[in-house]
Amino acid sequence: MSRFQPKNPDYRAIAFHTFEQQRAMKTLGISITRVEPGEVDLAMDYRSDLTQQHGFIHAGIITAGLDNACGIAAFTLMPAGAGILTVEFKTNLLAPARGERFAFRATVVKPGRTLTVCEARAYAAHDGAETLIATMSGTLMALAPREDAATDRAHMPA
Amino acid sequence: MSRFQPKNPDYRAIAFHTFEQQRAMKTLGISITRVEPGEVDLAMDYRSDLTQQHGFIHAGIITAGLDNACGIAAFTLMPAGAGILTVEFKTNLLAPARGERFAFRATVVKPGRTLTVCEARAYAAHDGAETLIATMSGTLMALAPREDAATDRAHMPA
Amino acid sequence: MSRFQPKNPDYRAIAFHTFEQQRAMKTLGISITRVEPGEVDLAMDYRSDLTQQHGFIHAGIITAGLDNACGIAAFTLMPAGAGILTVEFKTNLLAPARGERFAFRATVVKPGRTLTVCEARAYAAHDGAETLIATMSGTLMALAPREDAATDRAHMPA
Amino acid sequence: MSRFQPKNPDYRAIAFHTFEQQRAMKTLGISITRVEPGEVDLAMDYRSDLTQQHGFIHAGIITAGLDNACGIAAFTLMPAGAGILTVEFKTNLLAPARGERFAFRATVVKPGRTLTVCEARAYAAHDGAETLIATMSGTLMALAPREDAATDRAHMPA
Repeated sequence: MSRFQPKNPDYRAIAFHTFEQQRAMKTLGISITRVEPGEVDLAMDYRSDLTQQHGFIHAGIITAGLDNACGIAAFTLMPAGAGILTVEFKTNLLAPARGERFAFRATVVKPGRTLTVCEARAYAAHDGAETLIATMSGTLMALAPREDAATDRAHMPA
Repeated sequence: MSRFQPKNPDYRAIAFHTFEQQRAMKTLGISITRVEPGEVDLAMDYRSDLTQQHGFIHAGIITAGLDNACGIAAFTLMPAGAGILTVEFKTNLLAPARGERFAFRATVVKPGRTLTVCEARAYAAHDGAETLIATMSGTLMALAPREDAATDRAHMPA
Repeated sequence: MSRFQPKNPDYRAIAFHTFEQQRAMKTLGISITRVEPGEVDLAMDYRSDLTQQHGFIHAGIITAGLDNACGIAAFTLMPAGAGILTVEFKTNLLAPARGERFAFRATVVKPGRTLTVCEARAYAAHDGAETLIATMSGTLMALAPREDAATDRAHMPA
Repeated sequence: MSRFQPKNPDYRAIAFHTFEQQRAMKTLGISITRVEPGEVDLAMDYRSDLTQQHGFIHAGIITAGLDNACGIAAFTLMPAGAGILTVEFKTNLLAPARGERFAFRATVVKPGRTLTVCEARAYAAHDGAETLIATMSGTLMALAPREDAATDRAHMPA
């Protein structure tokens, strides 16, 4: 059970809806596997067309999954009508992204009216074992309902 | 002209070769537009299948471009036979990734035998104007030639 | 000359005033050497009581200087009555902090109504030469005048 | 009990010895409260001469504690004779550093022969309650015994 109490009773529906609007996620084959208040898991199958020079998944793709897990996790705790954007994140790459399937698991560390801080971890499932391959810490920003209409403002810390 | 003197006279050919082996770059439509010792520019056209919920390019895709620009920039200063991996990076998102075309420009800040620190900036070209949309600072690691053979080691700080 | 136009005509006086209220800066021997709109330089003399195990200035002390330079640089562009807090920063340590004197130079990369992104560099002056020893990228947050009264809120992203 | 097996049986003595050589820690009043393989806690009492403009402990001082906790935690897993330096860290500031006493708790996330990744959290104890005030993720580097003699190399990723 989550430590957090969502402000928006429709947080699950909104989380899925926002995720589905992100066409990049479909292109990368990333999907939601779990949504709780302040906690989100995503998953992705290995695809050879998303690899770097050694045949492992590219760090940028891993980061896209981690960032999105953080964003949706933060979003579940925001009020109805809010928009969300990423302010910043840092990724540490710990091991090669080698495996058949990848999981991105994010947790809200500190929710806030304007800023929410999240942490996420990426795991690779390979030959039946799961390895921690990357960590992220990131800051997400809520856009107030009135501001959300101005889509020009999205992803613009202002 | 670059401030740096490459150790590997074939640095340009090696940079292009490594980049071309990264299938994720082709999938994302990212290509090299400039390679100098310690300096690399990449470019990407807008594609609606790489967007987030507001129709802008997803932060993870922007990060993939920034990370790759840093990686190749660091790689140009490494000795022949070395491999390269990303240790960590941090991205600040400054403005929505809205535009027809995107540029990722990386510069080596401090080259090193083992670790190299790079900075990169992402720009969006929109209606004839260019906007700074994101910054990255990152650490890259050289894998010694003998280690490069062990592809298992790639992306594994050890 | 600075690229930025300050909103507060008293930005210099306010910058010095806020800095002087930071008792930690006096304790560490850090002082302001330059203030322009969006640009701040600080300086610190070597002190053996601020060193790590090799006799160089401790990374935390260097970070305190970098963070403060970023904070004051962001602060110069904020409206009268605003408060300021640090949201996050990342430091890359490039070389030992060895020298007689240290400089911390910050520049605003992207000012914003709520969030401002800065970059800073730390230099060591040693035997007449200056070496880049650390970089920082950080996010600062403006507290609206009405919120500033609530000192409980300072340093609390909310 | 720790998840990690130390390579150096004297890891505790070495950890304390290295910490005591850091004069900055004594100046800031930071001390070790717990050392296990890959896990270190530090503590610091409130001091008004280490504050920022609102009377809370300065973010740079909090970062010094977090960085040192990470450094010693990584150090406990390194072989005898190794040196240690910080490559980079990122700090997210979550709440004002207000309290009578502060704790810095670090854990190794991924140990490595050359690079070790750690996470740390800072807590403020105030009126009998403990609040999470900051997080850090950082990369530490082991200097091989032969290199440790070259103190010029300390804090220089190379």
